[in-house]
Amino acid sequence: MNYKIALIPGDGIGPEIVAEAKKVLDKVCETYGHSFSYEEVLLGGASIDVHGVPLTEEAVETAKASDAVLMGSIGGDAKTSPWYKLEPSKRPEAGLLAIRKALNLFANLRPAYLYDELKGACPLKEEVIGDGFDMIIVRELTGGLYFGERKTVEENGVTTAVDTLTYNENEIRRIAVKAFDIAMKRSKKVTSVDKANVLDSSRLWRKVVEEVAKDYPEVTLEHMLVDNCAMQLVHNPGQFDVILTENMFGDILSDEASMVTGSIGMLSSASLNETKFGLYEPSHGSAPDIAGKGIANPLATILSAAMMLRYSLDLDKEADAVEAAVQKVLTEGYRTVDIMADGMKQVGTKEMGDLIAERI
Amino acid sequence: MNYKIALIPGDGIGPEIVAEAKKVLDKVCETYGHSFSYEEVLLGGASIDVHGVPLTEEAVETAKASDAVLMGSIGGDAKTSPWYKLEPSKRPEAGLLAIRKALNLFANLRPAYLYDELKGACPLKEEVIGDGFDMIIVRELTGGLYFGERKTVEENGVTTAVDTLTYNENEIRRIAVKAFDIAMKRSKKVTSVDKANVLDSSRLWRKVVEEVAKDYPEVTLEHMLVDNCAMQLVHNPGQFDVILTENMFGDILSDEASMVTGSIGMLSSASLNETKFGLYEPSHGSAPDIAGKGIANPLATILSAAMMLRYSLDLDKEADAVEAAVQKVLTEGYRTVDIMADGMKQVGTKEMGDLIAERI
Ligand SMILES: CC(C)[C@H](C(=O)O)[C@@H](O)C(=O)O
Ligand SMILES: CC(C)[C@H](C(=O)O)[C@@H](O)C(=O)O
Repeated sequence: MNYKIALIPGDGIGPEIVAEAKKVLDKVCETYGHSFSYEEVLLGGASIDVHGVPLTEEAVETAKASDAVLMGSIGGDAKTSPWYKLEPSKRPEAGLLAIRKALNLFANLRPAYLYDELKGACPLKEEVIGDGFDMIIVRELTGGLYFGERKTVEENGVTTAVDTLTYNENEIRRIAVKAFDIAMKRSKKVTSVDKANVLDSSRLWRKVVEEVAKDYPEVTLEHMLVDNCAMQLVHNPGQFDVILTENMFGDILSDEASMVTGSIGMLSSASLNETKFGLYEPSHGSAPDIAGKGIANPLATILSAAMMLRYSLDLDKEADAVEAAVQKVLTEGYRTVDIMADGMKQVGTKEMGDLIAERI
Repeated sequence: MNYKIALIPGDGIGPEIVAEAKKVLDKVCETYGHSFSYEEVLLGGASIDVHGVPLTEEAVETAKASDAVLMGSIGGDAKTSPWYKLEPSKRPEAGLLAIRKALNLFANLRPAYLYDELKGACPLKEEVIGDGFDMIIVRELTGGLYFGERKTVEENGVTTAVDTLTYNENEIRRIAVKAFDIAMKRSKKVTSVDKANVLDSSRLWRKVVEEVAKDYPEVTLEHMLVDNCAMQLVHNPGQFDVILTENMFGDILSDEASMVTGSIGMLSSASLNETKFGLYEPSHGSAPDIAGKGIANPLATILSAAMMLRYSLDLDKEADAVEAAVQKVLTEGYRTVDIMADGMKQVGTKEMGDLIAERI
């Protein structure tokens, strides 16, 4: 089959890791007889350099015309990168929020999984890890505080700033449906996280999630307050299957969960709209400090490409093959420096990409 | 000296643990020649039972007329406790928010400290703990999303809920000053946590914190995004000294930090206004599941009483004595069940209170 893929290399280590993912996708094409055409899209620093703004209308159109978007990472050291040319209030956050909205990517899926081989990197003790953990955070991505009205005003010499957290029931319903659909393919448990003891938006959240749950009698629904969830992720991560939450809570909790695995360099993510279309990117950042050194871990991006094959292109067999290749390479003892351990074989970004491609 | 102390036993294990703190305070009076008079104040379930509302005007007046407030814990199992008589929207959260506002308790201090003796309870690996950690979270407590306008409206059959996050520069300044004052007595480092890459309120926060920092040239100021901070608490808690943040972020991060110590039953907190007045309470909740069993750990409440002696009553020597007694009892190997470990001597709530009192 032929597919159009938009590539956003982005900032920092982005271009290096996207190159390895592309290498792996090329091998998938060769092995399974597909053809992917790639179109590059500028976002963040790369776009500011060329166009003076972090995202252009044209870039959005190119992304929309594709079957899926694969992204490296956005963000740079604000003091040295082109970001610095923009007013802080014009940055949020250099095109990321704008592209999420323009493509209607309301569902952000972030798996946080502990690889058996990488238990050593996990910051938690053996007895807390228990039998390991494997959760997915389903974060609402186009509503809430990030997209509410905001203003900064001065009155009688006193400056006041306001942000607004708004959710309507339709926005909540569609993300809840996504979470329950995903739970049906997993361990059938949804933990919906809110602050319903204080916030109106959280009380509506809880009500709508309960309505949606009625259509999924096989799924166990549990509500958890966000402060408690932040504790439970450290205390007993094994209790979670699907965590469903709003934008800001999801931002905080998904990063905490990534760090709890100890191997954020391994974690992929998908941001989906109502169709099969999605944007795929590693959970980690642009790591400007190691950009260009050839040591970045490309596995999160390669696994994001696998998610893309599965969710947007319906190529399940191919996605399985990529994931199996990653598993194989880990079992064989290859590691980039971020997950390096005694007795393992250290490799660079390109070598890691080669190792995966060879195993497909 | 004579002092008036308002006691809020509260719900769940609250009455049991407050009784032990009172026992310890009585011993402090005896040893150091003070006299404390106590007045009981109803809040939460206890107040709903008697007055039908979680907080009365009268209770606020009693609290205001005292030199400080010592609280057990508020909260119950919503299905069985008197809380259930209230509409969810009337609960927030059963008087806690109202009393914070009425007493103007804008500065919430929550130490998160790893006791050498309790390293075994910490969920983190030895190599992550390193030389241990000792931080204090300074959380703004009367502004932000918790106290902003909220509404739930229906339009064309679609329900929308709105919460508002507002901060003015004066609210930010006074909490920042608190944080820097505290940092001056500690390791002179402030980490201010916000989401300035997205929120207007966070950009104002950052600006005002930077202004305040100019008056404290000895203190190192660092800004950190909230999602990153949630990661760093798990990855390298030893990097923090004072964490300064707004209400909601502080709620989430302080609970995460408590859990990272592994001994939330040991952690005290203080909520202060612009004077010396404050409300002191353990960081943990009301634990309705173990209420009345005589096994709750009273140490967090006893340590909160020590904070009260220090911050509100200026009785530093007495505060030191209480803290030293707690340290001594731990060193001698006494443990309540929540922090019990092999080879230690398990004791109940009352016994633990006795042990501390005896050592003062
Ligand atoms: C860069 C920032 C705006 C973004 C967010 O908070 O959504 C990032 O932290 C993420 O989680 O993708
Ligand atoms: C009960 C709740 C309203 C409260 C809060 O979030 O402030 C609690 O979690 C706390 O941190 O004291």
